[in-house]
Amino acid sequence: MSVVGYSHRPATRVKARALAIATEIADDLPSALANADLVILATPIFTFEQYFADINGLIRTDCIVTDVGSTKLLPHRWAGERLTRGAPYVGSHPIAGSEQRGVEFARDDLFVDARCILTATETTSGQAVRALKRFWSALGCFIEVMTPTEHDRVLANVSHLPHVLAAGLVNASDAGDMKSAGKGFLDSTRIASGPANVWTDVLLANTDNLVEGIDRVIAELAAIRQALKAEDRQTIDAFLDGACRKRAALVKYKIRKKELLS
Amino acid sequence: MSVVGYSHRPATRVKARALAIATEIADDLPSALANADLVILATPIFTFEQYFADINGLIRTDCIVTDVGSTKLLPHRWAGERLTRGAPYVGSHPIAGSEQRGVEFARDDLFVDARCILTATETTSGQAVRALKRFWSALGCFIEVMTPTEHDRVLANVSHLPHVLAAGLVNASDAGDMKSAGKGFLDSTRIASGPANVWTDVLLANTDNLVEGIDRVIAELAAIRQALKAEDRQTIDAFLDGACRKRAALVKYKIRKKELLS
Repeated sequence: MSVVGYSHRPATRVKARALAIATEIADDLPSALANADLVILATPIFTFEQYFADINGLIRTDCIVTDVGSTKLLPHRWAGERLTRGAPYVGSHPIAGSEQRGVEFARDDLFVDARCILTATETTSGQAVRALKRFWSALGCFIEVMTPTEHDRVLANVSHLPHVLAAGLVNASDAGDMKSAGKGFLDSTRIASGPANVWTDVLLANTDNLVEGIDRVIAELAAIRQALKAEDRQTIDAFLDGACRKRAALVKYKIRKKELLS
Repeated sequence: MSVVGYSHRPATRVKARALAIATEIADDLPSALANADLVILATPIFTFEQYFADINGLIRTDCIVTDVGSTKLLPHRWAGERLTRGAPYVGSHPIAGSEQRGVEFARDDLFVDARCILTATETTSGQAVRALKRFWSALGCFIEVMTPTEHDRVLANVSHLPHVLAAGLVNASDAGDMKSAGKGFLDSTRIASGPANVWTDVLLANTDNLVEGIDRVIAELAAIRQALKAEDRQTIDAFLDGACRKRAALVKYKIRKKELLS
């Protein structure tokens, strides 16, 4: 099997070659795609439309196209519009990675015991979905299949909204005060260190779901604000205790699924 | 040197004895405090007033009293009112620990390279502050001294507000959706697993600063909400990029202070 890497940045290609990150690093799309069985886009979401158009004439019509972007509705739409020669598209979203960016942070075991969501619509090729299940499973993932609509709603809530909150908290914090921060602050804002340009695309590709999530969080904050003003111990305790129990159930589930160590 | 532990819960005393967590575990306050040089309260904040009253007649007048509570204005006030026989009080806030609770999570190295804030007012004994500097330094901490007012303002922003946000995010999240959460969601909500009753006291002891912090976060969320509605890429990018850079500066500072590994 041959794994061919391509980046539009020459410096990234140099680094990728030095790190032997793939079997081969190509210098242009046509040579990267020649005879490919599977193409994986891993660029900011709003670049996908052009990439689909660019690769459309460069790949075999049975070459499977996927991506590892964080939203799926727009990629499915763009793939439908731009992959006009029949190459099947399936969305992939391995829930793995960190706030770090660049080929130098690549890891062999990144996908071991990670969840990977595949997205498919009524028109998606079942054969391509099965092929991608095998692909991600071989890397160590366990697979869930969702519609792009469901994916974007769920991911808004568990990923894009937390990102907005983390960035909002950092923005709302005084730089001097932050020096006194402990591990709690650092952990709860870690994701805000993710690359801004990648995340701008994610947020822009999921605005409706995000606005709903922000409204839910603002409602929670307004409620606890009122309870604090009223020194309403019972409401504050219920707010904290409810969150504590709900998160405990989540941690238990994640340990059972081996996504977390016990 | 003798370290005497006391808990009002018999079960905790049994566990602490089994774990040999201290030189001695006492079964009541008078025997715990007999001839103590230093008393450290580590209970929910709103229990301090009664403890100060209870220990007032049980300790030598040169015995230093401190606590490891997360707010300091109320403890200083209560100490002033209840330690009527002259024992000096200084607030201590070692910025260490986790969301775990109980003597079984005690660790020898918990305070190594941790920040410890001491709080003092105009009337606080300089000798007691110096003694506590030596005490926490010996455990591995580096020391900052603040007024209780400054402490509570700063800690509202870097600890109590993040706690409210983490709990608010969990409360705003659907339990089914949360199953798709990755490490980002888990990290950014970890502190929401802290013991609710302890945190209810913290929030209730710092309501004014917290309400101001909540208002700042709501303003940030309202701004990003508007930018998302307007699909205003420039504003969204500035929001994310600003947070990313500000947090990078914080991480750099924390690595320099050895609070984080590089």
